[in-house]
Amino acid sequence: MQGTEWIFTRRSVRQFSQRPVEEEKLHLLLEAAMSGPSCTNARDWAFVVVTDPQLLQKMADANGAPAKPLEKAAAGILVCGDLERAFPPAKDYWVIDGAIAAQNLCLCAQALGLGAVWLGTWPQMDRVERQRELLGLPDSVVPHSIIALGYPVEDIARPRESRYEENRVHWNGW
Amino acid sequence: MQGTEWIFTRRSVRQFSQRPVEEEKLHLLLEAAMSGPSCTNARDWAFVVVTDPQLLQKMADANGAPAKPLEKAAAGILVCGDLERAFPPAKDYWVIDGAIAAQNLCLCAQALGLGAVWLGTWPQMDRVERQRELLGLPDSVVPHSIIALGYPVEDIARPRESRYEENRVHWNGW
Repeated sequence: MQGTEWIFTRRSVRQFSQRPVEEEKLHLLLEAAMSGPSCTNARDWAFVVVTDPQLLQKMADANGAPAKPLEKAAAGILVCGDLERAFPPAKDYWVIDGAIAAQNLCLCAQALGLGAVWLGTWPQMDRVERQRELLGLPDSVVPHSIIALGYPVEDIARPRESRYEENRVHWNGW
Repeated sequence: MQGTEWIFTRRSVRQFSQRPVEEEKLHLLLEAAMSGPSCTNARDWAFVVVTDPQLLQKMADANGAPAKPLEKAAAGILVCGDLERAFPPAKDYWVIDGAIAAQNLCLCAQALGLGAVWLGTWPQMDRVERQRELLGLPDSVVPHSIIALGYPVEDIARPRESRYEENRVHWNGW
């Protein structure tokens, strides 16, 4: 049904054209990220948008082999948690809130005709520390995930097979 | 732009009509949940769908005061992590993968005209243990979040104000 095709057709895109991402689209992606729910509406996130090619190369180097697509991406958005805003009785909700923001961002990218791939940073603490140092983040800001973005070189809106797995579902108890 | 309105209009819905949720819609919600990315495509999640009113009441009791909307919900879906499937070098990615699945489920609900509210379980371990016991989950399955679902009593597709916060965004470094 209308509006959900982005959920079902979403795919990871790792090859990008050289076309830059318009600033208004970057703004919309960030607004999408901030439109998700968060624990007690803490909005305990922060975003570092990187478009400088040299810095993208360094971010890729700091995030392990799977981050190679970032080298040729038009932009990389590092989603972070902000522990100063996190729900004090259970600060680890920041991990969930950051994932919600990053997924909204990826779905919005798909709807805008952009390609995106999610690059895991947390909980791999070597990556977390290297990104923190590279980007000069304060101690209260924790790197969560990087979304590499750009215009895709392939058609990304084509249908996909269902990814439903029956054995993942239990009804009214295990 | 088309297809992203569900991201921007999404809101938490806590009051539901008595109309049940059609089984085909529940299936589609679960398919949406399983259409998100996961670390190394581990798909390290599992779902317990609860429609039994007495069991919904017990789930609500086990999940703290914010879970009260579950008492009158048509369905509650407990999103879980499956540690047996999780990426062995960094199993905690299950927390991110579960959040992606749950957010896809919430956005799909919005697009289907359903209301949803996200009820936090992990990392509040008292809630995690009570849900595990109530639903008879194996040790390798960890309760993550509950999504309460039903037909809303209010119009949920109406526009919302922007939730963009300028001070959350940094460009090419902190």
